[in-house]
Amino acid sequence: MRHDDFPAGSVWLVGAGPGDPELLTGKALRLIAAADMVFHDALVGPGVLDLIGLDTQRISVGKRSGRHSKDQSTIDALIVGAALAGHRVVRLKGGDPAIFGRTAEEVSACRAAGVPVRICPGITAASAAVAAAGGSLTLRGAARQLSFVTAHVKAGQPLDLDWGALAKADATLAVYMGRAAASLVAQQLTRAGRAADTPVLVVVNASLPNERIIRGRLSALAFLVEAVSDDDPAVLVIGDAVSMDAVLAPGSLRQVGQVLERT
Amino acid sequence: MRHDDFPAGSVWLVGAGPGDPELLTGKALRLIAAADMVFHDALVGPGVLDLIGLDTQRISVGKRSGRHSKDQSTIDALIVGAALAGHRVVRLKGGDPAIFGRTAEEVSACRAAGVPVRICPGITAASAAVAAAGGSLTLRGAARQLSFVTAHVKAGQPLDLDWGALAKADATLAVYMGRAAASLVAQQLTRAGRAADTPVLVVVNASLPNERIIRGRLSALAFLVEAVSDDDPAVLVIGDAVSMDAVLAPGSLRQVGQVLERT
Repeated sequence: MRHDDFPAGSVWLVGAGPGDPELLTGKALRLIAAADMVFHDALVGPGVLDLIGLDTQRISVGKRSGRHSKDQSTIDALIVGAALAGHRVVRLKGGDPAIFGRTAEEVSACRAAGVPVRICPGITAASAAVAAAGGSLTLRGAARQLSFVTAHVKAGQPLDLDWGALAKADATLAVYMGRAAASLVAQQLTRAGRAADTPVLVVVNASLPNERIIRGRLSALAFLVEAVSDDDPAVLVIGDAVSMDAVLAPGSLRQVGQVLERT
Repeated sequence: MRHDDFPAGSVWLVGAGPGDPELLTGKALRLIAAADMVFHDALVGPGVLDLIGLDTQRISVGKRSGRHSKDQSTIDALIVGAALAGHRVVRLKGGDPAIFGRTAEEVSACRAAGVPVRICPGITAASAAVAAAGGSLTLRGAARQLSFVTAHVKAGQPLDLDWGALAKADATLAVYMGRAAASLVAQQLTRAGRAADTPVLVVVNASLPNERIIRGRLSALAFLVEAVSDDDPAVLVIGDAVSMDAVLAPGSLRQVGQVLERT
């Protein structure tokens, strides 16, 4: 086991990917195995958590929309404190730390305390979602730009995005944490000029055994989300890249966990 | 070795990640080991290619900007033909197949021929780039939207993007294959209203031993790219998420491959 890049008293922020333990990188596996303490999100898959050794302290600092179990400053203090106590600390985040992961806050907290901190990237949810559906996020000629937004906002705050920019016809939009905001997203995009029959793909628990995939049209987005999401986090993908031609062709329908066709 | 999801005569499109073999997923490793034939891009890292077994046929179908060694329809025909001949085929793509990977074309070709095809996601270059720099692509409050574009266009075609939408102050823009277009990107974004002192990060060969990282301001983007790119593919990241505060704080400078500070 190489420890050159993981001295005692340091922190690695590690992307846990979408949930399937097979979608962890070799580097993430090595860092988890070398850690004394792992602080993890609620979004980290159970199969990934099972890879944490019995000798390793495993601490949930889970946050899910509307149910913050620990606030960000508490999490910052916990990981910094653990590193200052001489531990090798892994902060394990669902997906990729670079995309809506509040990574900057944790990096800043470590640096302010003089704690060495590094980052191991992970597979982000949107990539896993379209892979599960047999498609792509971009499409040469038709979907040359890709935008990611998060629909998760603090309670009481409006979802204040530039809908005009996001409504462009030749762009793909991936909405993270999109369950609660699905109706608003569809409404605002349509109002900003996006065609009501724009293809949409909704993926819940991408890469996990209980993965659910549904496709349809933008006008039915809220309905589609309602049909498959339960209380689980959903990724919404909107644009021609997820059209019937591009994903979920008949030959692939049998390969995905559960597919509902409904428009 | 599980072969349930990789029968003879089928194709997996597999994300090879940014280049470091440690950033391959466990699933990608398993599929590569199970393959009879691997067709790979020029962007797949040499360390990743070394993981391909000696009994496995390894075919380069490399494409790099301006030097197309095989056109897309030839690649489609090669992978379909190999699968129809009964081989287990891996199509290994640099980064993530879902992001500027021409995945839709290859998936369509397989389906048209009745060849089962599935997708294994990978770490995309922008995620690896900011991870190497110790930063994030999003920043709560300041960078709530993330857009990916590719600056690679067919010879003679203009880089026709919606610069107004991309110039928004609270968004991060990641430009793939951005080496040749750096000057144009800076010019168009500035003309569309993006501040000339917007922070930028340029990463060449992210995650590889010869990784190079440089940061500065949008006004100097072409100069920064020139300083580090040589002939290698560069990812440009533009926005407050890659400000001096957010990445490359002094404590991390020694951890990255090579850093030049120049604005």
